[in-house]
Amino acid sequence: MEAARGIADLGYKAILVEKRDRFGGTPDEAQYAALTPDLRNAEEAINEMIAAITDNPNVDIMNNTTITACEGEVGNFKVTANQNGKQVTIEAGAVIVATGFTHFDPGRETQKYGYYEHDDVITLVDAEKMLKAGNFVRPSNGEKPKRICFIQCVGSRDRQIGNEYCSKVCCGMSSKQAIEVRQHIPDCKVFIFYIDMRMYGYWENEIYWPAQEKHKVNYIKGMATEIIKKGDQLIVKGEDTTLRRPMEVPMDMVILAVGMEPSEGTKEMAKIFGLKQNKYNFIETTGGPLNTVATEVKGIFAAGACTGPADLEDTVSQAGSAAMKAIGAVRSVAVPA
Amino acid sequence: MEAARGIADLGYKAILVEKRDRFGGTPDEAQYAALTPDLRNAEEAINEMIAAITDNPNVDIMNNTTITACEGEVGNFKVTANQNGKQVTIEAGAVIVATGFTHFDPGRETQKYGYYEHDDVITLVDAEKMLKAGNFVRPSNGEKPKRICFIQCVGSRDRQIGNEYCSKVCCGMSSKQAIEVRQHIPDCKVFIFYIDMRMYGYWENEIYWPAQEKHKVNYIKGMATEIIKKGDQLIVKGEDTTLRRPMEVPMDMVILAVGMEPSEGTKEMAKIFGLKQNKYNFIETTGGPLNTVATEVKGIFAAGACTGPADLEDTVSQAGSAAMKAIGAVRSVAVPA
Repeated sequence: MEAARGIADLGYKAILVEKRDRFGGTPDEAQYAALTPDLRNAEEAINEMIAAITDNPNVDIMNNTTITACEGEVGNFKVTANQNGKQVTIEAGAVIVATGFTHFDPGRETQKYGYYEHDDVITLVDAEKMLKAGNFVRPSNGEKPKRICFIQCVGSRDRQIGNEYCSKVCCGMSSKQAIEVRQHIPDCKVFIFYIDMRMYGYWENEIYWPAQEKHKVNYIKGMATEIIKKGDQLIVKGEDTTLRRPMEVPMDMVILAVGMEPSEGTKEMAKIFGLKQNKYNFIETTGGPLNTVATEVKGIFAAGACTGPADLEDTVSQAGSAAMKAIGAVRSVAVPA
Repeated sequence: MEAARGIADLGYKAILVEKRDRFGGTPDEAQYAALTPDLRNAEEAINEMIAAITDNPNVDIMNNTTITACEGEVGNFKVTANQNGKQVTIEAGAVIVATGFTHFDPGRETQKYGYYEHDDVITLVDAEKMLKAGNFVRPSNGEKPKRICFIQCVGSRDRQIGNEYCSKVCCGMSSKQAIEVRQHIPDCKVFIFYIDMRMYGYWENEIYWPAQEKHKVNYIKGMATEIIKKGDQLIVKGEDTTLRRPMEVPMDMVILAVGMEPSEGTKEMAKIFGLKQNKYNFIETTGGPLNTVATEVKGIFAAGACTGPADLEDTVSQAGSAAMKAIGAVRSVAVPA
């Protein structure tokens, strides 16, 4: 949406292809309550972005549309799509892929956290939905929790799973949710078990310090290895790395900070557009740190979490950069020097 | 440079004002050896960026030029500058401020690390210069070191100094240098003392894992509190947070991972263009995570480390976004709807 609006603002035509019947991607689908780091209402923010492209004479919106094939080259791509069951052809001088991520499924490879066994073991996504609904309760009994913990790096920094990368946003998102829980349920104790708190840049002073000092969130450097049920509580077993001793702590709810993986759409688009994927199946950008959106195919760009873990700042900045470069690419073949 | 090239590629005119006689900013001035995270030769990368704007018919280059005043509004700014002692007026529809950062001076507020006392206590910047020269030695005696350590968060995450923010890049840069030292001097033991290793996203698998596994860099969660001299060695005193005991370790060299602060130019431009600064004196962007380059003044944008700690990826993405939005702003007043 950001790239389409930018392209439209520059007087060029943007065709926005979306497989769902509405915009907003994963934050909409997963019903995010508030943005990280500024806790702005997510729905309001998404609606503002949608408003900027709706009834915009330079933006053609194609919902319920799936890309099925692409041929041609920069300046002259012919993209085949399926719109509501009907085959259509889209002509475009350049393509920006922005197919995002999916959340790691904590039950996929290993059941060590008991996500599908214990009702009160949930993910960041489940928690976000409850926070959005203003009803943060234990799924097992509908009561407000008195002790909850977040477990970081679920599906990230994990060789066993195959995801060695850090998912970048989960430390910030957990801390944001921890603050929200403390605000909604002041007598609930909130713990975060982490390896490193990756509160880079301003997230440090904007979220991490207030979470600790103002909102009394307890950060514990430790690894959780197992979650079992005991009576109506959960027992988190693991190691407190700082105290260097095993820990066994009772919790009413456990929130798994699940990381990012490439979405199905990202993997499909990589194949259709002939883009190189890295070992994690994200789309590989080819310009190193000095070009965050170029792919191996001239005229095709990638922005946001389809290229790897990305926060909102990364995503909108890359969208702007991709918009600029996409128009530049079209101009470079349309206007001979 | 990235924004200017992007604007030129879109067929608009960019005027690039630089106070120094050459481009490249802090990475050039501080003689960076290699980029983080890909270890690409920094000089080569900068020269490639310079080449893209040199002899570009859409880019006017003004070196040795300092902005002194600005009046007007979006679509019609009149910027006064001093070029080689001569006053000139620049007309511009929009302005992008990209005045970057300066490295924290580890002797400024506190002398706890003895930067100005001990020859063998250096900063990341000093180390980078030596790596670029291919001559990484102890300043005190010109010999190759056998034991060195990096101390993270010097001037960052530090309330006493007044910099609560995390500087975002120092963990990556230290790890990159640690790898380079291990490559140049295979029998040198390398330690990194850290609070949290902020190797977010792909920095985790691209630098952090190889640093530990392939290059045998030793990461120790610990706080250094004092550095003293003993014979011809340095003694780093502090606390090993994992082992939970005081540490006193001998080192041949200590490298202080100094953080980012706003450059003088950033503070001056904020005043001249009437831009709000945050409590750390970086330029405040006003769009939250969904707009990384807008400032309080319509038509004036900020990109890169002048807005706060930023890595190369952030900076070039923001430059692209700023280029797009700057042209959009000019068009919005020039072309009535």
